[in-house]
Amino acid sequence: MSEYTVSFLPYAKKIKVKSGETLLRAALEAGAHINASCGGGGLCGKCRVILEQGSVEGGITEKLSPGEREKGYRLACQSKVIEDLVVRIPVESEIDSTFLDMAATARKTARITEMNLDELKEQGLFIPPVEKKYLELPPPDKDDHLPDVTRLVSFLKLQHNEHRMAVSLPVIRKIPDVIRKENFKVTATLARPVQSGRKTRIINVQPGDTTDRNYGIAVDVGTTTVYAQLLDLNTGKALEQFGEFNGQISYGEDVISRIMVAEKPEGLEKLHQVIIKNINSLIRKLIRKSGIDIDEVSTITLAGNTTMTQLLLKINPAYIRRSPYVPAATLYPPIDAVSLGIELGDHVTALVYPAISSYVGGDIVAGVMGSGLYRSEELTLFLDIGTNAEIVVGNKDWFACAACSAGPAFEGGGIRFGMRASKGAIEDFSIDPSTWEPMNVTIGNTLPKGISGSGLISIVATLFEMGVINSKGKFNRDLNTPRIREIDGIFEYVLAWKDMTAIDRDVVISEIDIDNLIRAKGAIFSGFMTLLAEVGLGVNQLDRIILSGGFGSYVDLEKAITIGLLPEIDAEKVIYVGNGSLMGAKMSCLTNRIRKDVVEVTRKMTNFELSETNSYMDQYVAALFLPHTDINQFPKLKQRLKSRSLIQ
Amino acid sequence: MSEYTVSFLPYAKKIKVKSGETLLRAALEAGAHINASCGGGGLCGKCRVILEQGSVEGGITEKLSPGEREKGYRLACQSKVIEDLVVRIPVESEIDSTFLDMAATARKTARITEMNLDELKEQGLFIPPVEKKYLELPPPDKDDHLPDVTRLVSFLKLQHNEHRMAVSLPVIRKIPDVIRKENFKVTATLARPVQSGRKTRIINVQPGDTTDRNYGIAVDVGTTTVYAQLLDLNTGKALEQFGEFNGQISYGEDVISRIMVAEKPEGLEKLHQVIIKNINSLIRKLIRKSGIDIDEVSTITLAGNTTMTQLLLKINPAYIRRSPYVPAATLYPPIDAVSLGIELGDHVTALVYPAISSYVGGDIVAGVMGSGLYRSEELTLFLDIGTNAEIVVGNKDWFACAACSAGPAFEGGGIRFGMRASKGAIEDFSIDPSTWEPMNVTIGNTLPKGISGSGLISIVATLFEMGVINSKGKFNRDLNTPRIREIDGIFEYVLAWKDMTAIDRDVVISEIDIDNLIRAKGAIFSGFMTLLAEVGLGVNQLDRIILSGGFGSYVDLEKAITIGLLPEIDAEKVIYVGNGSLMGAKMSCLTNRIRKDVVEVTRKMTNFELSETNSYMDQYVAALFLPHTDINQFPKLKQRLKSRSLIQ
Repeated sequence: MSEYTVSFLPYAKKIKVKSGETLLRAALEAGAHINASCGGGGLCGKCRVILEQGSVEGGITEKLSPGEREKGYRLACQSKVIEDLVVRIPVESEIDSTFLDMAATARKTARITEMNLDELKEQGLFIPPVEKKYLELPPPDKDDHLPDVTRLVSFLKLQHNEHRMAVSLPVIRKIPDVIRKENFKVTATLARPVQSGRKTRIINVQPGDTTDRNYGIAVDVGTTTVYAQLLDLNTGKALEQFGEFNGQISYGEDVISRIMVAEKPEGLEKLHQVIIKNINSLIRKLIRKSGIDIDEVSTITLAGNTTMTQLLLKINPAYIRRSPYVPAATLYPPIDAVSLGIELGDHVTALVYPAISSYVGGDIVAGVMGSGLYRSEELTLFLDIGTNAEIVVGNKDWFACAACSAGPAFEGGGIRFGMRASKGAIEDFSIDPSTWEPMNVTIGNTLPKGISGSGLISIVATLFEMGVINSKGKFNRDLNTPRIREIDGIFEYVLAWKDMTAIDRDVVISEIDIDNLIRAKGAIFSGFMTLLAEVGLGVNQLDRIILSGGFGSYVDLEKAITIGLLPEIDAEKVIYVGNGSLMGAKMSCLTNRIRKDVVEVTRKMTNFELSETNSYMDQYVAALFLPHTDINQFPKLKQRLKSRSLIQ
Repeated sequence: MSEYTVSFLPYAKKIKVKSGETLLRAALEAGAHINASCGGGGLCGKCRVILEQGSVEGGITEKLSPGEREKGYRLACQSKVIEDLVVRIPVESEIDSTFLDMAATARKTARITEMNLDELKEQGLFIPPVEKKYLELPPPDKDDHLPDVTRLVSFLKLQHNEHRMAVSLPVIRKIPDVIRKENFKVTATLARPVQSGRKTRIINVQPGDTTDRNYGIAVDVGTTTVYAQLLDLNTGKALEQFGEFNGQISYGEDVISRIMVAEKPEGLEKLHQVIIKNINSLIRKLIRKSGIDIDEVSTITLAGNTTMTQLLLKINPAYIRRSPYVPAATLYPPIDAVSLGIELGDHVTALVYPAISSYVGGDIVAGVMGSGLYRSEELTLFLDIGTNAEIVVGNKDWFACAACSAGPAFEGGGIRFGMRASKGAIEDFSIDPSTWEPMNVTIGNTLPKGISGSGLISIVATLFEMGVINSKGKFNRDLNTPRIREIDGIFEYVLAWKDMTAIDRDVVISEIDIDNLIRAKGAIFSGFMTLLAEVGLGVNQLDRIILSGGFGSYVDLEKAITIGLLPEIDAEKVIYVGNGSLMGAKMSCLTNRIRKDVVEVTRKMTNFELSETNSYMDQYVAALFLPHTDINQFPKLKQRLKSRSLIQ
């Protein structure tokens, strides 16, 4: 897709954007503020800009008079970039450009890293755990009475140099008829042993040559969402991907409430059935969309947190939520997929990612594997931020891990207008430093309904850095704007007036919301700082930070640093791996090495219980400020705040 | 039980019998003929004997006049031995005692050998494949967050020196609640790996100490009958045993007709269900009778012929009956018992004996293992005689095996009055050499209904040795007795007149019956002679013969030699192992060594297809005589026949 350069005046900001991007988002990415309170929905008419060079697609609505249109006025949220542009943002008062520069910082999201398949292949690590072999067997005759299974096994040895085979009963049942169907021409599906020294299993036989059709499925069983990916085991390519909300949500939002349901009579069975139904629904979608035959799916790998895994496997999770918080198991044997109720062929073994502890689960281990961290020299802080935050520190030689409860703030919980990152959620924000008018950018460019997790960070960071709130998260009572108001003794900032929202109510952020966010970020910051301290390391010794999970994909790094969620580290050192759990599950479908290595990795991983670490509470209390009690841990931010006279 | 000596006059025959035995059977065992055409039912009144010393219990009926009773006359079939006796058999004509001696030979059945458990224990081979271990685990606390499964595995290592454990999902599901039930006191059931280097599996956990309760079940899946035995794995003792007819009989008597049913739609499923139903019924009986808890049954081993095994495992047996007669598989993996529909705990693995070929099955391999043949130095001919006869020759270093179809004669098939060995079947016979009157002894001492397999051999051998039939099985047309008659051109001998039978018809044996028996025995004799020839051995090189299967238990060895079913060998060298299949299944429950060794044994076993061995047909044709075309293969018999001027 073509890229074009957009320059914003009077800011000295330029940015390259993809063809079709709106001018509002382009301004946001560039760090140029445009008033826009309706979230990009085209309703408020405030995001007017003047085209000085070039033209756009759209951007003309009844909000603009014919005269304005003539002069080049356009609504930024409705204008799509189709060529290089110079755009002027009309400013309401004369202010110098230094001040303008303060308005917003250019958005810096983490670099997205994907598993490099070619690299894997080069290193000889693309060894799918399930392979197909085509055979032409000699038929039995009066001088050759080899039993059917022995015939198959013998010729796998002769024709394919395959040794030490095991055959399960379901396959034995198939063999006699299948080998005779196309005159003793047959394809055998072989599952490689995870542990060396064990046997290769013949898991399926099919008439004729079907070696070109061999698929795997990777599943991330998240507390909120479940994702599944269809993989071509011959090429390593992901063919299709679908996600669904975890059906267990109706039994409770978080793992603790799910465990409580599981403890009721039939509760475990019910939750188990619900997640299996999810998985089967996703499998059906993958099969339907791709048009493959379900019998050609040879393997499935699943990853989830410890509670999700125990519910998936129908293992009582009661003791996970009770002190001393022990899981039933952290290593799970390979399981016949059908025995779990998964609607795949009876030849399919389900592999479930091992966990570390009750709160550092298989999803995190999958992330460590899928991101390649497990074989990296670089000293890495791996963070998966959600209601619970999981933290891993280490490199290929050792790992320490811990989990902490951040509360649901990042997923919209405990925030009055908090919501999941879905249509109508304010996900990005800036503020006019003279008028205190907002620029709201919503998911779907539509009228705001609420605030997403990343939006919340963006809003709080911006309010803090612009001096609208102080380091305790309290509003500056002296600012002259109707957007800051006191209701029942609580101060709040009106992000969007009710006639500019999709919910017919003012969308606001209050000091209570901010306080909740500070507690959440404080828990995480103190979590990894405690873990780093336990292993004798400081932030400056880290080579990189890996962010995993939905949260990491859209969070603005600078803003996350500004609120003190992330340590002050060069943005280049922060990598985003997307859904690490799904990536790990995928990797494990594509290369048997991962399946071997993962057990070793879990052995190298030392779990720390933060609640039993004395310094954790001190760290936590110190982190209950923006960005932190000790501003010196954030020297660049300190410098910026100083330059704006916000601190001394 | 007390034993008493009974002397029969004018025969010079003495025998020791158990208290309560009838005089008729005592005479038979001693080789003294008493006319008795009603089979021991007390009806014909012909079996009169005179007590000369001692007294008996019973024996007086209305068949005897008061005067006769006074003189010491008793009916032999109704008289029970309760002390030492001298008994005179009234002979109807004066004949010399040499001639009398000819009348019957003393019964010689094979020595019964049972597995010697003490010997096994001495040799350290009593290693049940499933063992229980009791543990007292430390509960988790804030300094010990070991997952439940890891805790169990770690302490099996610490407290019992158990290494390399695998745990299946059903056990993982049980562990969290079970270990907490009696305050972390728990018994783990461990299944040893069959192949060294593999892991020990934890297959069950139970609260508290249950180590004293650990049981196994051994099953022989016969075409006609199914037997099951409950074993105490702590002592090695068989606690209970039950047998049932194989429910598949209603779908066909022999394996071929069963296979034909299995080839019909749903036929395989139906036959599979029927045999599983049998096994479940037997298990229920064992459990009910012994009063144990079904959850304490830890293992089950099954043995059967190749067709029965494939039906048991629901593997299409179609190709067993079609040239070139290949089975689907000869090695079967361990299988979850519940997945077969066997109603045992979900922790129980079913082990199924491996087969050699389509017609030498797991029952025979079990016999080779259970009889100890597999580790014997002695060169042995192992015979399992039924509709199909299976033959194994060899010793611990090598084995050759073959199967031949004998037809159903030994089980009563193709014989007009043939029947299974059940109540009313003539099972033993002798003849008065002057009057040609019979002594019929039936199972249950009741009126005859027909002839059992061993009765048939006894009758034909006696008729032949007494010159009533010739070596071609044709009756001597010159004998003066109404019992030999010609009906529609076929000669027959009346064993019991209709008023002396339970079926209101004359019970006879005809030349057609005799011809069928000759074909059956000829097939078996030529079978093992061909196999011996193929491996370059003669009968005289054999150290022993092992008879396995129901047939071997009651066959009179001398008579089996007389008809040419068995080679002329010292009766001391013939051993009977009973149900070899069940014995093998039992052994395999009691010692894991057998499970390891059996795979090696099957590798050492070379299968010969007799139908494709050129000399087999010649051998067969030569064996279609009594005892054989070449009488010199039976020198002792030749001598006897010569002394009676029946041959020159």
